Amino acid sequence: MKKTHAHLADGREIIYFDESDDAQRVLVDPRHMEPGAPTSEVRYDAVLDEWVAVAGQRQGRAFLPPRDECPLCPSRDGRQSEVPSPDYDVVVFENKSPSFAQAAAPGDVSPLDGGLVPRHPAFGRCEVVLFTSDHDTSFAQLSPERVRTVLEAWVDRTLALSALPHVEQVFCFENRGEEIGVTLSHPHGQVYAYPFVTPRSRQALDSARRYSRRTFRNLFADVLAAELEEGTRVVAESRHWAAFVPAAARWPLEVHLYPKERVVDLPSLSDAQRDDFPGIYLELLRRFDGLYDTPTPYIAGWHQAPVRADRDLSYLHLTLHSIRRAPGKLKYLAGSESVMWAFVNDVPPEAQAAALRGVAL
Amino acid sequence: MKKTHAHLADGREIIYFDESDDAQRVLVDPRHMEPGAPTSEVRYDAVLDEWVAVAGQRQGRAFLPPRDECPLCPSRDGRQSEVPSPDYDVVVFENKSPSFAQAAAPGDVSPLDGGLVPRHPAFGRCEVVLFTSDHDTSFAQLSPERVRTVLEAWVDRTLALSALPHVEQVFCFENRGEEIGVTLSHPHGQVYAYPFVTPRSRQALDSARRYSRRTFRNLFADVLAAELEEGTRVVAESRHWAAFVPAAARWPLEVHLYPKERVVDLPSLSDAQRDDFPGIYLELLRRFDGLYDTPTPYIAGWHQAPVRADRDLSYLHLTLHSIRRAPGKLKYLAGSESVMWAFVNDVPPEAQAAALRGVAL
Repeated sequence: MKKTHAHLADGREIIYFDESDDAQRVLVDPRHMEPGAPTSEVRYDAVLDEWVAVAGQRQGRAFLPPRDECPLCPSRDGRQSEVPSPDYDVVVFENKSPSFAQAAAPGDVSPLDGGLVPRHPAFGRCEVVLFTSDHDTSFAQLSPERVRTVLEAWVDRTLALSALPHVEQVFCFENRGEEIGVTLSHPHGQVYAYPFVTPRSRQALDSARRYSRRTFRNLFADVLAAELEEGTRVVAESRHWAAFVPAAARWPLEVHLYPKERVVDLPSLSDAQRDDFPGIYLELLRRFDGLYDTPTPYIAGWHQAPVRADRDLSYLHLTLHSIRRAPGKLKYLAGSESVMWAFVNDVPPEAQAAALRGVAL
Repeated sequence: MKKTHAHLADGREIIYFDESDDAQRVLVDPRHMEPGAPTSEVRYDAVLDEWVAVAGQRQGRAFLPPRDECPLCPSRDGRQSEVPSPDYDVVVFENKSPSFAQAAAPGDVSPLDGGLVPRHPAFGRCEVVLFTSDHDTSFAQLSPERVRTVLEAWVDRTLALSALPHVEQVFCFENRGEEIGVTLSHPHGQVYAYPFVTPRSRQALDSARRYSRRTFRNLFADVLAAELEEGTRVVAESRHWAAFVPAAARWPLEVHLYPKERVVDLPSLSDAQRDDFPGIYLELLRRFDGLYDTPTPYIAGWHQAPVRADRDLSYLHLTLHSIRRAPGKLKYLAGSESVMWAFVNDVPPEAQAAALRGVAL
């Protein structure tokens, strides 16, 4: 694999990950652009003891542009996109409208409300990961070799962003489908580097700490072992990975994918685990897409150990979920979920696992 | 106010709240219906240390029926709806497809996965609250007198459901608008009685406990006082109530409404607080609806003290939020929010408060 660094016209970093060692990429971005001045901040919510990002400049971002104006396609035929090269395999670049940025610098970060609401610049980084130069495909249709390259890009970005000042957790994810609000249809994912441990990780790691004190065991490893032992919710299994619908799934369609041998983050995966990943992940995505007549909208995300905290308790895994609960019907987060955070799942996890296993591939 | 109890054909309870003491309601439901057999259960999610409800039978519920088949309109002209009477003011009845029910009784509630996943029948109750017999109006257009009657119904249901076995928290809420998945357009809300303290309340009360240990003060009262002192995010204020966009709002449009004098739940509100509520709440809803050309979809919910736990830390308040972030644009919960629970708000709270204050009423 060949890795090539360059910068876009406004100074943002761009990194090509090429499968051929003799790939040559166009490194100069001829556009005229001023460097962005991100003004995001994070504010402390005293009621819930959590950080919330406030990122006003994102309101103007690209919204479902026509196909021939896709900013994620390569630059061809005289049209300059976000990627200066006329082709690429996998490419990563800094998001033009970042929620988190190293340069984040709001004018005033004094605490609000007499000290109750500390705030800080939203230090961190947001990157876009393009999975292929082909506008009209999807992750599920990538070759295993390409998925392996994407995995190496995720590993690379996790290492690079973890080393940046103020970064406490790195999150690699993909939103797929207009039904979940995706504003660009070109196959792509994102990486967020947060200046805090995310609320879900904090809650899961607090739970894992209590479990470990009580049992001297790893919570995630025991959940995985119990699901494999039980078997009824297992959707796919390979030599090094296993995927199941969790017993207490929150979403109508939800699968968790774990490496069988515990590692804490993507860079810690062994070569054997990495080589074994494309097959099972592509199988899962194809099972998702095979459930209905149209491709399933989904959100896929990697749960990695925080950069510093609680690495001894962590267990790398990916969650994959959809809000589609039946053909043409979406699960909305209504009062119980969005106000009280109490989830009601209308699809029994055992039935959903059976449906996923039953998809003909 | 006159309160009248009756039962629907399948045994579900129905309660009329009438503004006139001589209102006469038809109490007999002539339909032939078998009693429902709710099979919901709650499952313990060991990873996040939370309960999740699994309610399979809800998949078949009514979905945007045509106007002349509305099950929430009164029974008139030979057509029988869920309300036997030809008219009503406010009426409450048990949900036909409940997520939580006193009769919940799944066949097998033995723990899953070797004890890691305890499960129980989803004891509790789900009720529907009809705000008016007029199909084509909205809460924002109710008379102040009617809002006062709805408030009395919420108080009544909070007291009644808190007394049921296994109920740990009562939640009164309204989902309004097809964009957030509302399946029946007749103006109505719901009441959920949960067999656990909801995750958001648990997190807020844990935060309030830490704050109280550190300061000997009530967290919510201090947040309210700080917002009133700061002023820039206050949207509306009356003699006994105050509403503001929180400094760390998660949603593009979010307002919190507190009584100025602390009470822990709706039944604890004084007569003066109750009388003063319709004016400020109607003002808030009209400000919401005045922001755009079309009525704003919203979710409104009351945060009440749990039935038993942490009542000393609680402070009754209502939250009102919308996922509409601009005309025709919705805020979707994508990777950061739905996977890591890390919210990115694209609308600065101060700007949103100013916009709400600027709505001409």
